[in-house]
Amino acid sequence: MAKFERHIFICTNRRPLENPRGCCDPEGLATLQIRFKQELDARKLKGRVRANKAGCLDQCEHGPNIVVYPEGIWYGGVQPTDVAEIVESHIVNGVPVARLVMRDQCINTETCEHKPRQKPESTSAP
Amino acid sequence: MAKFERHIFICTNRRPLENPRGCCDPEGLATLQIRFKQELDARKLKGRVRANKAGCLDQCEHGPNIVVYPEGIWYGGVQPTDVAEIVESHIVNGVPVARLVMRDQCINTETCEHKPRQKPESTSAP
Repeated sequence: MAKFERHIFICTNRRPLENPRGCCDPEGLATLQIRFKQELDARKLKGRVRANKAGCLDQCEHGPNIVVYPEGIWYGGVQPTDVAEIVESHIVNGVPVARLVMRDQCINTETCEHKPRQKPESTSAP
Repeated sequence: MAKFERHIFICTNRRPLENPRGCCDPEGLATLQIRFKQELDARKLKGRVRANKAGCLDQCEHGPNIVVYPEGIWYGGVQPTDVAEIVESHIVNGVPVARLVMRDQCINTETCEHKPRQKPESTSAP
């Protein structure tokens, strides 16, 4: 065997409900990662492609997030119902699922159209 | 900003002590990941390089393990005292630390010189 052909990191980070950044796995069930594992197993890709749990990928406002290496394709807003399409299109056929790909300019930025605007500091107006 | 220039995944998986595969973070303290974060922060690399917690990377017998993408360089047996060298040599200067790099033939294989031999099944001899 050799290195994984593709290594999928799926955020399973949890934060308290009141945290304004939210988190990708609020129930701590790793549902998305488990779906990827099932889909890879069903296609006999175990050992060649890995669906890995990851801590916070730091793109919380776009979550649930995953990133696929070595190509470094980021996906945001991924739901369990998207997994079969990502595996079929991207992992098997090499074509990322465009509707879910996070744009470069949305990654590691403090402001983008998908992030909630900063609330102004509350004043002590009556 | 844009994608991370490098994304370091550090295994923080825990298993019960009696598990024969062991694990990379038996105390659950994420000591190695924290050291990477400190070292990246000190070099002002935050936002360009990320030290990410990861679940099991499935190379447990070589642990503690990390993998650096996008280049896909795997390291095994990494200790906190190795972190500054990895960041300086590999992350800053692009030269992987050869003495810790996991060889391709040791990755995703059932047998290699670093893995303990399978114990024969115990017999009921008197």
